[in-house]
Amino acid sequence: MDGRDGSASGVGDISAPGRVAGPDEGVSAQELALAARNHGLPLEALRYDVTPPGLHYVLVHYDIPDTTPDGWRLTVGGRVRRPLVLDPAALRALPSATHRVTLECAGNGRARLTPRPVSQPWLAEAVGTADWTGVPLAALLAETGITEDAVEVVFTGADHGVERGVEQDYRRSLPLATAADPARDVLVAYAMNGAPLPPQHGSPLRLVVPGWYGMAHVKWLTDITVTDTPYTGFQQSVAYRLRQAADDPGEPVTLIAPRALMVPPGFPDFMSRTRVVRPGPVTLVGRAWSGHGPVTRVEVSEDGGAVWTGAELLPDPAHPWAWTAWRATWTATPGLRHLTVRATDAAGHVQPLVAPWNRGGFANNLVQRVEVLCTAEPTAADPYAGDPHAAEPPPG
Amino acid sequence: MDGRDGSASGVGDISAPGRVAGPDEGVSAQELALAARNHGLPLEALRYDVTPPGLHYVLVHYDIPDTTPDGWRLTVGGRVRRPLVLDPAALRALPSATHRVTLECAGNGRARLTPRPVSQPWLAEAVGTADWTGVPLAALLAETGITEDAVEVVFTGADHGVERGVEQDYRRSLPLATAADPARDVLVAYAMNGAPLPPQHGSPLRLVVPGWYGMAHVKWLTDITVTDTPYTGFQQSVAYRLRQAADDPGEPVTLIAPRALMVPPGFPDFMSRTRVVRPGPVTLVGRAWSGHGPVTRVEVSEDGGAVWTGAELLPDPAHPWAWTAWRATWTATPGLRHLTVRATDAAGHVQPLVAPWNRGGFANNLVQRVEVLCTAEPTAADPYAGDPHAAEPPPG
Repeated sequence: MDGRDGSASGVGDISAPGRVAGPDEGVSAQELALAARNHGLPLEALRYDVTPPGLHYVLVHYDIPDTTPDGWRLTVGGRVRRPLVLDPAALRALPSATHRVTLECAGNGRARLTPRPVSQPWLAEAVGTADWTGVPLAALLAETGITEDAVEVVFTGADHGVERGVEQDYRRSLPLATAADPARDVLVAYAMNGAPLPPQHGSPLRLVVPGWYGMAHVKWLTDITVTDTPYTGFQQSVAYRLRQAADDPGEPVTLIAPRALMVPPGFPDFMSRTRVVRPGPVTLVGRAWSGHGPVTRVEVSEDGGAVWTGAELLPDPAHPWAWTAWRATWTATPGLRHLTVRATDAAGHVQPLVAPWNRGGFANNLVQRVEVLCTAEPTAADPYAGDPHAAEPPPG
Repeated sequence: MDGRDGSASGVGDISAPGRVAGPDEGVSAQELALAARNHGLPLEALRYDVTPPGLHYVLVHYDIPDTTPDGWRLTVGGRVRRPLVLDPAALRALPSATHRVTLECAGNGRARLTPRPVSQPWLAEAVGTADWTGVPLAALLAETGITEDAVEVVFTGADHGVERGVEQDYRRSLPLATAADPARDVLVAYAMNGAPLPPQHGSPLRLVVPGWYGMAHVKWLTDITVTDTPYTGFQQSVAYRLRQAADDPGEPVTLIAPRALMVPPGFPDFMSRTRVVRPGPVTLVGRAWSGHGPVTRVEVSEDGGAVWTGAELLPDPAHPWAWTAWRATWTATPGLRHLTVRATDAAGHVQPLVAPWNRGGFANNLVQRVEVLCTAEPTAADPYAGDPHAAEPPPG
């Protein structure tokens, strides 16, 4: 092997193990490259019930595959009596369902942890809500005749790459009890907000697993295999585990922990993103969600969490898998404020005031904090220019 | 003024002057917050002639305004004989034009500078190409009857915020010679790729200025004012200047400098983004563009820029404002390679091998470098799992 311009010669040399940043280590060039590729929901876009195209968060492990619906085949096999091969047109001909689903990346909040696990450096914005249309997975599996010994269903996507030295297609499993339960509303989706899936959201086919973090929603879906043993592949047993140490087997990441986010009020400073509001009543609005059940309480605080006030919930029973809107009135008085919001769900989970740390940086649902300057200062005109509207009316 | 939980009391306290990062300063939390909000083009999306929705780069100075076409008014006034007030429906009723335009942020490449100007930390991906439809600005201005003393046209957007202590609506000007020249194809656009503008791209109206960096393409356009003096507002005379020192007045940022980018070949490692290819011929493809004129040459190098080989250009005369596709064949041999690509335009500008530094980090068109490991290693199966496809066929 020719190493003339570098010593690397195997995949292991360019694919390092997972690590945690040092105490004074800023965000690295590698983390920045991931942040520039993938993107979150700009928080003002929480104003939309359904996230407009391009504002929904995107996380791609490797590359967006170069796919077209022509020639695409989805195979369904393993521990089934009647294996299937379906193209997107055949799926569209089957009975369909549409569900409004709030989807969140399991790594949301990772970059706010100390020490910081080195990976996609999400702050709080890796979320979005869409109307997904597709074939109910439970119906598809029923059609195949699952055998009695089946325990899991494994989903393979076309996204191909290397991760911590392991070359792989992206692949994840679900327990059969989730995959085959009609009430869980799992979809093999071919449309997002009424249009074909965009490339970055899994075109032409993806899995949608309401209530679960994003890693379960396998994109660019090529294969569904029913198995009689639990799946132990990389994305199941190495990645996406809640562990305190590298040798801890850890618990799997599954359902979305509760989170509330607010639309940052007023207007921002470009660089610091600190908000500016005028004194007086300010309507705070936002969204809250949990994979464990309905959100039952949202509270806001203007002092960083010492005193909490209940917000009004605006639930939408037609969309049980989507976030819930909330609203509160805050009376702003001059000074620098630290607005905080937290959600509680029907299972009794409350968002923490201290970040729950784990080595992968998963499920950090630490409360959002928004720095707001309330100032009575009048709006200054741009000192570098007269107002161009002040131009004299022209002659004639 | 009540400073009970912080000393900040005025906008200047939360809005710092521009600065350059220290020698060992990693990317800061503020830069990361901008990187998480705004997003680039994942480089594999260079494969599309027209960038699909959601993959085109987005840079928003303040917040995406909460706009709707209902009630929106565009005023056109200043040094004109017949001021206009138009709603989006009135604009749609006027003769329209559609232009395919490659748009790039002036700050693209900023995060690769040393020292690094602290702002939106783009690497190389702040680009995209779309079909924009709207009313030619030259026709609109002709309709108003510009007076003889006019020199510039000032454009105001609804994006409101603070930047380096200055509260402002985003506002920029163009020389009249650019704004009123039909051959420059400037548009007041209301559609992107045949659909109404998405919120993050300026809904319901924006300016499109082919060949100019993104700062000129004012989004959420509310006002066009013709002036008889050069505009000296913040975004014109403070931001978007090429200066070596803070007190240097600098030259304005205008036309896009030439750049070529390649679709990174093979497949990536998740974290390092280093590519993996097998030995043998590899087709390299990508795009190249310049605001100064057509791209006349694209060259690739496998050794970081010591030896260059010409690529094939695939120009599309129907779309003179859009990027040009290019293609080259590279014979990969085992080892770690550093692919590089550079463009030359008709005005004789060649992409540099050393980054052109300025205090704002604008127009850094340093050549792209892509690290590629060529290895003959067979693809290893995921060692953590048997192939789920290997499940035995079920009984019966």
